[in-house]
This record gives sequence, C-alpha cells and structure tokens, in this order.
Amino acid sequence: MPIILGIDGGGTSTVAVLSDETGQVLAKVVGGSSNPTAISRLQFESELAKIISKLKEQNENAFEKVECCFAGLSGVKELSFEKIAKSVIQQFYDDTVSIIIENDACIALFSGTLGMPGIVQIAGTGAITYCLDSHNNSYRAGGWGYLFDDEGSGYDLGREALKAVVKSYDHRGTETVLTEKVLNHFQIDSVTKIVDCIYNDEHPRAIIAPLSRYVIEAAEEGDYVAQVILSRAAQQYILAIEACASQARWDVRKELPTVLAGGVFTNFNLFYDVLMKQPMNFQLQFLQPKLIPVGGAIIGGLKQLNEEVTTEFIQNFAEQMKMKY
Amino acid sequence: MPIILGIDGGGTSTVAVLSDETGQVLAKVVGGSSNPTAISRLQFESELAKIISKLKEQNENAFEKVECCFAGLSGVKELSFEKIAKSVIQQFYDDTVSIIIENDACIALFSGTLGMPGIVQIAGTGAITYCLDSHNNSYRAGGWGYLFDDEGSGYDLGREALKAVVKSYDHRGTETVLTEKVLNHFQIDSVTKIVDCIYNDEHPRAIIAPLSRYVIEAAEEGDYVAQVILSRAAQQYILAIEACASQARWDVRKELPTVLAGGVFTNFNLFYDVLMKQPMNFQLQFLQPKLIPVGGAIIGGLKQLNEEVTTEFIQNFAEQMKMKY
Repeated sequence: MPIILGIDGGGTSTVAVLSDETGQVLAKVVGGSSNPTAISRLQFESELAKIISKLKEQNENAFEKVECCFAGLSGVKELSFEKIAKSVIQQFYDDTVSIIIENDACIALFSGTLGMPGIVQIAGTGAITYCLDSHNNSYRAGGWGYLFDDEGSGYDLGREALKAVVKSYDHRGTETVLTEKVLNHFQIDSVTKIVDCIYNDEHPRAIIAPLSRYVIEAAEEGDYVAQVILSRAAQQYILAIEACASQARWDVRKELPTVLAGGVFTNFNLFYDVLMKQPMNFQLQFLQPKLIPVGGAIIGGLKQLNEEVTTEFIQNFAEQMKMKY
Repeated sequence: MPIILGIDGGGTSTVAVLSDETGQVLAKVVGGSSNPTAISRLQFESELAKIISKLKEQNENAFEKVECCFAGLSGVKELSFEKIAKSVIQQFYDDTVSIIIENDACIALFSGTLGMPGIVQIAGTGAITYCLDSHNNSYRAGGWGYLFDDEGSGYDLGREALKAVVKSYDHRGTETVLTEKVLNHFQIDSVTKIVDCIYNDEHPRAIIAPLSRYVIEAAEEGDYVAQVILSRAAQQYILAIEACASQARWDVRKELPTVLAGGVFTNFNLFYDVLMKQPMNFQLQFLQPKLIPVGGAIIGGLKQLNEEVTTEFIQNFAEQMKMKY
C-alpha cells in the first residue's frame, strides 16, 4: 500500500503528513513559515528539512515506505525555488520516490476537485485565482499582493468596510450597520478615532483583514452597503476565474469545477448565492473544499501514483485530521 | 499699510511669507515639515518658531508691523493643536495681532476663490475635500488616509495604473499603454518584475504616487483604460464635493466655486473636461488656484482685516513668488 508525504507550506505555518490511500494518517507535523518570499533561503531550507525530519521521527517505518512526496508551497514558484525545495526533500529519499513541488493554490484546488482539473478562487488575507486544465496546463490571475491587487481578499473586504464607515460619516455614503460593528470591534465611540486605531499600528494589514467578517455578517443581516461590497468582490472573482477559464483547454464537460477556498468563504452558502447572481460567460460549478489543504497534497500524490481518490480516503482523512474545512 | 504673515504648513515643507495688501513680498522662508501627525509636539513647536524667527531676521521692520497672522497648517486640526500653534506665534506678538490657525485645505480654497466661500478638491499624494460656506461653517469629506480613503489621490491613481497593468497581463483586463509606460518607468522588461519594484521598497507610497502622471498622459493619448480610471476618480471628487455642498448653507448664487488644487490637477483642462461629463446635482464652477497656497494664507489675513483682495495683489504676489500655480 503506497504511502504519500503531503506538505502544505504557507506564510504562517507549514503542515506535513504521511497518509496511505485509505486516508490513514500515519504522522503529522505542524511547523513554521516555509514561504521563501518571507524568510531567507537558508531558513526556508532548514524549516523544510526540520519538518520532514520530525515526520520521520514520528513514524520511521511509514516514512521509509513513502512512494511520492507532493508539496504545495506558497512563494516557491514566484522565486523559482522548485529545485531548491526538491533537493531538500531528496536528501531523505532515493531517486525512486517522486517528488512534486507545486504552489499552494494547486493543493487548494485538489482539496475541492479531489485531483481533477478545475479552478480555485482563494480568498484569505490575500486573494489569487488558479486553474489547472484538462491538459495539465496551469494559469493564474491576481495574487500580485495587497498594495495594488487583492480584490475580494480579507484585506480588501476589511478596507471596504472602513471606506463604507467613513463615507457614511462624512455624507458621501449611505448609513450602514458596519459603523456600529467596526466601532464595537475597536471599542471606540467615534468614527474619527478609527484613524488612530489603523495608522498607529505597525502592521495595518493584520488589523484590517479581520474586519472582513463584519462585511459578511452585515450582508447576512441584509445591510445594503455590505451586500454591494460582496457583490463587487464577486464580480472580481468571476473576472479572474473567467480570465483563467478562457485561456485553458477543457475536455468537453458541462460545468467547470470552481473551488472557493480560504477564510473569506467560510460561509459558502452566502457566497454561492452572491456569485450565482453575477453574469457569467462560463458555467461554473462552485465547490467547497472537502479537506484541509494538506489533504489536497495527499490527493496530488495519489494522482501521481495513479491511485484512485476514494470516498473512504476522504472520510478517513477528514476524520483523522479533525480539521474538516 | 497692513502687513500679513502667511504660513502654509505641510508634511514635506513649510512656507512662510510677509506680504502687504499690494502683494509686495517682504520676507520669505521655506522650512521643514510642520505637520504634527508626522513629527513630535516639540519638533512641531520648534520648527514653527524657527521659521517665524527667520522671517523676523529677514525683515525685522516689516515683521514688527504685522497686523494679522494667518496659518494654514496640515494635521493641526486633526490633533486639536490649534492652541499650541497659536501660542508659538503669540510669543512674537502682543495681543493686538490676530492669529488665525486654519487647516491647509482652507488656504488652498482661498488661493482659488480669493477668500470667498466655496469648495476645494485637493488631490496631491493624498486627497481631501473642504468646503467653507457663506456663513463661515466648514465641512470636509475624505482625507482619512491612504489605507482606506484616498480615491482620486496621486497614490490612488498610481495604484490604479498598477492594477490595470497586472490585470491586462493576466487576462482580466484589456490592453493599455500604461503597461509600456510603467515598465519604462521602472526600467524593467516584464510585468512580473513590478512586484519586486514595489514591495521591496520601504515606502511603497512614494513609489506608487508618481505613477499617477502616466494615467494622465495615457488618458490624454486616448487610452481607454486610463480614461476609465480618471472618470472613476472624477465620480469620487463629485461625490465628496456634493457631500460637502449639500450640508452647507449658501447665499443665493448660481454656481458654487470649486477649486481643484494639488499636483494631480496640473493639467486643469483635462480634469475640467472629465468632471463636466459627470452627472451633478449642483452647478459647480471649477477654478484653478491663482496663487500658490501660501498666497491663500495672505488672502485669509486680508479677509480678516477686511481688506480687499485686488487684482494688483494677485499679480504682484504671483510675480514675486515666481511660483504661479
């Protein structure tokens, strides 16, 4: 029975697991950041090696039986660090073990499509759209960072909440329950005090992105301003999804699987409704991820080994990780 | 003949002059930042005192004859520092000299309306709208800073240029000459390298705001994408102008004087055309500033002394400052 080593590498933490094709999790390690755009090359190499060593310690027997390592690493493709990542992992294995380095968007896709081609719209603190077509070509849109390209990200939605609050205050915009929610959040009694809360902080992004949840709350409560914000974000998701879809080559099928991944989409049903109201040129089938992203990495490994992704695998893996998406 | 001390205090530099009612400039000093939101209270006080001392040194005779000091200081109202600013200036004069502390937007308004009520839309690196009505009430909209409220500022236009370039690159947007202009600006050969140019800098705002000039260039050349960016900015200016205008009390008159001030509006005719295409609820008369902002401070002083602002004053002052707006 083949064993897969799956890695989900991000800017905040890195998760690595050993799993077999039935979804039996044989080892699991959570480490620090492995995004090389945020840390040095040496730190990147040592963090990755440390995490893999720990997996080995946890279950040396399973570790030795790994037939494929599939890693979804953020920031690695941007720096062309695929070879570096591969050589770190190669130290642990001989040449018979296949090692695949992909970006983190790829495993987010697989966690929803279960290894099939499709599109994933990610919206966490940042936003990016990734597409893998029927001929294994990949495309991306967005992901150019928070300073000029992040529509629909948590940071963007939080910023739109602040915009709406100050525009309501100085008579440029209509009233919104966002005002009350944002004032409560900062425990302040006047809109003018928002400026101090935001600009005095060294990392305003970390202050602003969490406000996105109030946009979602307010939209659920029927607040018009919040609903307009979500509708505009949905327009941007569709724009990016269709930009990818139109370049890709699809084998005939009716609907394109489109995974919505990341913290912004926690209320999937809300976004499903908002998205379905948008005009579209493609028929999109919106999907929730069925596993956390590292599950997508295991699926990538199974795919590489031509193993089927069974319902048993999904259920077992989700159960054992106890972190269903 | 009354002499006025006028001060234009900003985040980058502070300009102070002594002028009489004929526009004869009797002393002129350019100092550093006097925006207390950017420097400490002590630095603020000492910079202001230093600048005034230098004016005195330059022309002690004229300095002693000052009947009014009118200062337009950025950031002072935000921190309720009017009293502090006043007490610094009061050290140089007895109680017969009137000292008026206003924000910098007020003198920008006066530099265009020559002391009359009206509205000023400022768009430099940042953006703010200020209005002084016929009954001396003031209103403002915008100016909440670059993180969430700066539509139509130089920073905003520069960011929109970058958005347009990356959206064109990843098939979300249409082609635009902004791509060529931005690549030339950074001396790079690929859009993907923009990320490094922007995010590796400690002060991305200072990198992004200057790109606004390419939006204006491209719009002049007929680029559709750039024209849409300017049109959206114009919508935001009108929104802010009308938000102020609708709260204000105006004595009957046909058109509201609306000054366009700041570096973004250097090509006044272009913005005039773009603005006149927007739907409006008020009749607005768009005006170019006739003097640099410190001239607006002198006008504020003349107004305080019930002196007329003559054509002679405007011509002389502009000529002597050799910095016609």
